[in-house]
Parts: sequence; C-alpha cells; structure tokens
Amino acid sequence: VPVSTPSAPGRPRSDLNATVFAATLRTVHELGYVNATMDRIAAAAGVAKTTIYRRWPSKGALITDCLLDAFGVLDGFGSVSLDGATREEVVSSLIRLVVAKIGEPGVGAAFAGVFVDAISDPALREVLSTRLQDPGRLVLQDVLGEPENRVLLLIDVIVGTLLHRMGMTGEPMVEADVAALTEMVLHILR
Amino acid sequence: VPVSTPSAPGRPRSDLNATVFAATLRTVHELGYVNATMDRIAAAAGVAKTTIYRRWPSKGALITDCLLDAFGVLDGFGSVSLDGATREEVVSSLIRLVVAKIGEPGVGAAFAGVFVDAISDPALREVLSTRLQDPGRLVLQDVLGEPENRVLLLIDVIVGTLLHRMGMTGEPMVEADVAALTEMVLHILR
Repeated sequence: VPVSTPSAPGRPRSDLNATVFAATLRTVHELGYVNATMDRIAAAAGVAKTTIYRRWPSKGALITDCLLDAFGVLDGFGSVSLDGATREEVVSSLIRLVVAKIGEPGVGAAFAGVFVDAISDPALREVLSTRLQDPGRLVLQDVLGEPENRVLLLIDVIVGTLLHRMGMTGEPMVEADVAALTEMVLHILR
Repeated sequence: VPVSTPSAPGRPRSDLNATVFAATLRTVHELGYVNATMDRIAAAAGVAKTTIYRRWPSKGALITDCLLDAFGVLDGFGSVSLDGATREEVVSSLIRLVVAKIGEPGVGAAFAGVFVDAISDPALREVLSTRLQDPGRLVLQDVLGEPENRVLLLIDVIVGTLLHRMGMTGEPMVEADVAALTEMVLHILR
C-alpha cells in the first residue's frame, strides 16, 4: 500500500487511489502540469477536495504516488520480469517500461513537472527521493547486484534521457535509439 | 545575435539582453520557474514589460534565449575548446560545461521548467528545438563527425541525466559520476 495516511471512511483505499490517479493523469494531460491543481483533480475524480488532502498533503505528494503506481515500482516494476533475467534483459525491460509509460497520456508531463517543482523545493525533493526513487533503487540494486551510486546513475540516465527526448520531440524514443541507450547503460555496469 | 525582433530604441541590444537574462535567472532562482512571470522579470530587470515583449513574444522564447546565452551555444559552447580536441576531450568538456552551468543559480530550474512547459506545448517545443538544440547539434555534428540521430541521443543523455540529478538531489553531479557518464557516452560514439 503506497500511502500511510488514514483512509477516507466508507470507501476502499485502493478504489479511491485508482480513481484519483486516473483523474490526476487525465487532468495533467488535458491542462498541463501547472494548471492541474488539487481542486481540478478533485473535480475530475468526483471526490471532495478534503478527501484528496486527507490522503495527500500536497500536489507533489499526490503526483509522486501517482507515478509510483504508474511505474509499478512497489510491484518490482509491474510487468517487467526480473526473476531469473540476465542483466541485459533487466536493463532492456526497464528502459522499455519507462519509454512506454512516459508515452502514456499525462505520465511524462507529471513526471517532468514534479522534477521542476523539486528543483526549487527541498521538501519535495525529499518526498521524490524517498518515496519514488529509493524503492526502485533498492529493487535494482538487488536484481543487478550493483552498488547504490551506480544504480542512481543508471536511474538518472534512463529517466533523464527519456524525459528530455519527450520534452524536445513530444514523442517517445524510437527503437534504434532505445537500443543504443540500452547498450550504453550496460557499458557502465560492471 | 540570438534574436531577430526589432531592438528597443535607444539602448544597445546586447546591453538589454545581458540585463534581462541576468534578471531572468535571478527571478527563476528566487521564485521558481512557474512564479517567474514576464511581469516579475521585467521589474527585476528595471525595464518596461513592453520592452521585454517587443523582443521575446513569450516566456518560453525568453527562457530559450537566456539558456542559449548561458551555455554559449552560438559561440561554439563558449569556454569549451573544440578546435583540435580529441573526441574524448570534446565530450568531457561538454559534460563539464553542462554540469557547471546547471549548477549556476537559476539555470537548472529555467532549463527544466521550459522542458516541462514544452511537453504540453508543441509551439514551444518547436522554439526549443530550432533555437536552442539545433545550433548546438550542428556544432557537435561538425566537431564529432557523427550523424544527426547520434548527436541528438548524446544531447538527450547529457542534458537529461544532469537535469534529473539536479531535480533529485538539488546538487550538481559529483566527479566520479561525471567520469562514468563521460565513459558511457563515448561508448556510443563510433
């Protein structure tokens, strides 16, 4: 369960999460990150603003949990099969997962938007780093057998490169570049 | 000269650019990207808002020119010595230039902020791509002797990785990671 604040009464936590996360991505996709306020997200989800704030104290916290869910981080990256995979397969699957997710409506804009806010907001950096990046990092350290600093660089390179491509072109990365990026990243792993 | 709109009368273009660019970075650094409006930038620069709009039709256009200037793109990346340098030296100097510039007050936040806006704004993507990325890409294609798609990937990897690191940690990348990033990037060049 990605959130530790109390549940809204009378509604299952997972149901509310799914409804709010879908409304968040839809609103970010339609209005852009800055205009996707907590008010508008609550309205799009059809729930009271207080219900949203009871679970997520800030837009940054909501976006972080929404991304955690979208990438399946707490499920070991969801659809990516990690058990028994080679290092090449893990890196390749992970890059393809990020390419696919960043191409989904709202996900790339939400991801990039929360980073920008984080540059001017140390508290949000802490939320992003501990709630989103750390769980993913721990899974990857375990699966790849790499030290923390190397996995952090791997995450910077994969996520940063794919977000930059999306910002410049508005399109996910094409297959030939995905292959080159995969080869490049594998080169820095021992 | 980075801008083709008419000059404000009575003031040299380069003087006004320098004043406005410095005020832009200062305002972004102090208030964050979203709160750094054209009004506030004009006030910080001590010039009329109409003077700013005569030269830059939008905040995106102003930020783009400000970054073009900060990275010295139209000077062949300013302080980076490209003539007679090896491919390793060019890539290493370029990465160090981006690390240093992204660490200057306002530059990382301005860069990341304009990318986020671009994800939801195709016209801004066009401005960013043609005014900021293309001149840098052409210099690098020439110096490195690499094709367009490879240089575009190089730019995505260097800029994206360093912005992601800044967003997550609030700090420029440490030397050991800069060395690993340099080695990784050189690996995909022929």
